[in-house]
Amino acid sequence: MKRIGIADTTFARVNMGQVAIETLRTLSSEIEIERATVPGIKDLPVATRRLFRERNADLVMALGMPGKAAVDKVCAHEASQGLMQVGILELRPILEIFVHEDEGKDEKELAWLARRRTEEHAENAYLMLFHPEEMVKRAGQGLRQGFADAGPLPKGE
Amino acid sequence: MKRIGIADTTFARVNMGQVAIETLRTLSSEIEIERATVPGIKDLPVATRRLFRERNADLVMALGMPGKAAVDKVCAHEASQGLMQVGILELRPILEIFVHEDEGKDEKELAWLARRRTEEHAENAYLMLFHPEEMVKRAGQGLRQGFADAGPLPKGE
Amino acid sequence: MKRIGIADTTFARVNMGQVAIETLRTLSSEIEIERATVPGIKDLPVATRRLFRERNADLVMALGMPGKAAVDKVCAHEASQGLMQVGILELRPILEIFVHEDEGKDEKELAWLARRRTEEHAENAYLMLFHPEEMVKRAGQGLRQGFADAGPLPKGE
Amino acid sequence: MKRIGIADTTFARVNMGQVAIETLRTLSSEIEIERATVPGIKDLPVATRRLFRERNADLVMALGMPGKAAVDKVCAHEASQGLMQVGILELRPILEIFVHEDEGKDEKELAWLARRRTEEHAENAYLMLFHPEEMVKRAGQGLRQGFADAGPLPKGE
Amino acid sequence: MKRIGIADTTFARVNMGQVAIETLRTLSSEIEIERATVPGIKDLPVATRRLFRERNADLVMALGMPGKAAVDKVCAHEASQGLMQVGILELRPILEIFVHEDEGKDEKELAWLARRRTEEHAENAYLMLFHPEEMVKRAGQGLRQGFADAGPLPKGE
Repeated sequence: MKRIGIADTTFARVNMGQVAIETLRTLSSEIEIERATVPGIKDLPVATRRLFRERNADLVMALGMPGKAAVDKVCAHEASQGLMQVGILELRPILEIFVHEDEGKDEKELAWLARRRTEEHAENAYLMLFHPEEMVKRAGQGLRQGFADAGPLPKGE
Repeated sequence: MKRIGIADTTFARVNMGQVAIETLRTLSSEIEIERATVPGIKDLPVATRRLFRERNADLVMALGMPGKAAVDKVCAHEASQGLMQVGILELRPILEIFVHEDEGKDEKELAWLARRRTEEHAENAYLMLFHPEEMVKRAGQGLRQGFADAGPLPKGE
Repeated sequence: MKRIGIADTTFARVNMGQVAIETLRTLSSEIEIERATVPGIKDLPVATRRLFRERNADLVMALGMPGKAAVDKVCAHEASQGLMQVGILELRPILEIFVHEDEGKDEKELAWLARRRTEEHAENAYLMLFHPEEMVKRAGQGLRQGFADAGPLPKGE
Repeated sequence: MKRIGIADTTFARVNMGQVAIETLRTLSSEIEIERATVPGIKDLPVATRRLFRERNADLVMALGMPGKAAVDKVCAHEASQGLMQVGILELRPILEIFVHEDEGKDEKELAWLARRRTEEHAENAYLMLFHPEEMVKRAGQGLRQGFADAGPLPKGE
Repeated sequence: MKRIGIADTTFARVNMGQVAIETLRTLSSEIEIERATVPGIKDLPVATRRLFRERNADLVMALGMPGKAAVDKVCAHEASQGLMQVGILELRPILEIFVHEDEGKDEKELAWLARRRTEEHAENAYLMLFHPEEMVKRAGQGLRQGFADAGPLPKGE
């Protein structure tokens, strides 16, 4: 059994935590879930570290939807730095799954993107914990989570 | 009993610390308050860590009103990073409650916003300490503190 | 007795450290001074931590005058982050007293501002160490160091 | 024997990890390789620290290809800071080998650049571990990895 | 005897490390030198910490020449933050001596500046280690390293 922490927010406009949990359930029966919900993305680093320390997660999916104003971009940057610091201190992987509100051309695409990116990162979480050798096989493939993959560059001569 | 730390500033143009204390009093009789006031938002991280270490707070509300000049935006960014670092080191939640001076269309709205955002975050503080399961129920609801909630996105097909 | 560290620079165009010392002398006879001078503001964080660790300061006033070029603004940001980190690690307050070279309309105003901001922060240092309850009374008053106070916002209805 | 860690991503559009390994094989038979592949560059700091701690690397090559959007530039900045922090904590060198998607004038040049920069940094890795005195001889030579060297400035009078 | 660490890069277009060593030799016979050369400025923080830890430096001069592209400015910022973090952790001074490629009006001036700034900071290194009281005497004098000093502001009335 592996334990995956789910940290998400009340600020997000999609229940990304629930999407993550549903996807993980379809991927493996050997995953236990621990979930914490906080107000916004800047609260994710502390929540994430607590999922590692107090609830023994092996990996955390940190989910959020930063707004589109300049101040929101700064918030996202701060949250990212905090999450990275927690990962460095805990030596365990954190998948930051942020969907910026201006990434979708309308509300419908934005909702689709939030679900799809979460699903694809849930698969990353699964592979990182159970099949890291599979990640190596995918190195340099230009993979994306959400929109279409960029794909590998042509090798040249 | 839970203990909530209140860190605020003499720079702010609204007594946000007092608003926080009054709101917490209406939410529960099982909350003890510890308060520290410092000159500006960049002094909040140290004050916050001391509220955790020396006065045993379970959660800190860090309140401030950054100015509207470019240098003030940088200050707010620095303060946010410092607060996040303290939370990570202490493993306890910090609610950063900043109201930027350019968020209100006039002084009246700004004063209203400072009070309202503080009140709504006081409720978050209460829920996080006493009813974390209630936070999970609110995940992905597009909640905002101050102005109107954005609400959840339509689910699409 | 309390001990206040003074960290300042040879880069500054006003002897802010001397202004700080003279002001502290007028405020209390129970303050001991420890001073260190370094080349520029990016050297202040190390000097500040040494004032805490090796010379036992209870609070440090970190004084500097960042230039007006873009690179100087970045330096000031880096210095601020370093000072904040030292405060968090040492759990003791640091008053960052920076005067940006473009804050004054001419050299005369700039020199006045550097002195005045230092004097007003020396008073903050005194209150924080000897009368923290006085700081709480000033919460939300819109106080500024240097130019005129902004004052509190009208309370609205 | 020395052990070099290779951390790379599935996001990259060139298999930079493989290029690094092939180059190191041509440089020395006294190098052992440990490889980890993660989704994106923000996952490199944790992977790098684990290569030091759990797989005993003496140096890590951290390889990635940030995209060209503004958000990608921020990601690269965050990843760089995280990698630097890991190096500082572990006291062992990390070569950050990033190729920005807008550094090539077309896909062909971009692919060439990703390979060439990786090869040249593999040589740096070799020299740093086996012949640090050779690095000192190259000090101030205006060396670049990928495009042509800038070369030393003329000495003047 | 005092020990000064010299950390420099193969990226720089002037052998700043050599300039530093030659200048220090003229200033005192009581200085021992430890030198490490790395590829670029982002490698300086680790090299600097190792000079403190493994080769027992009392102070490190960290020398580099950031390029003029936007990405180079970000690199310089990251390197500066890393150097500051090392200084804070080690409690020993680091003189960051960076010359930006766009600081000189041509290659000749740039080469001159790189040498001159290094020489003037070598004197700072000497004073900080052997005569810190001399630094205090220079406080607020508007000193610069490289180009002409700004000088102190007129005192006003």
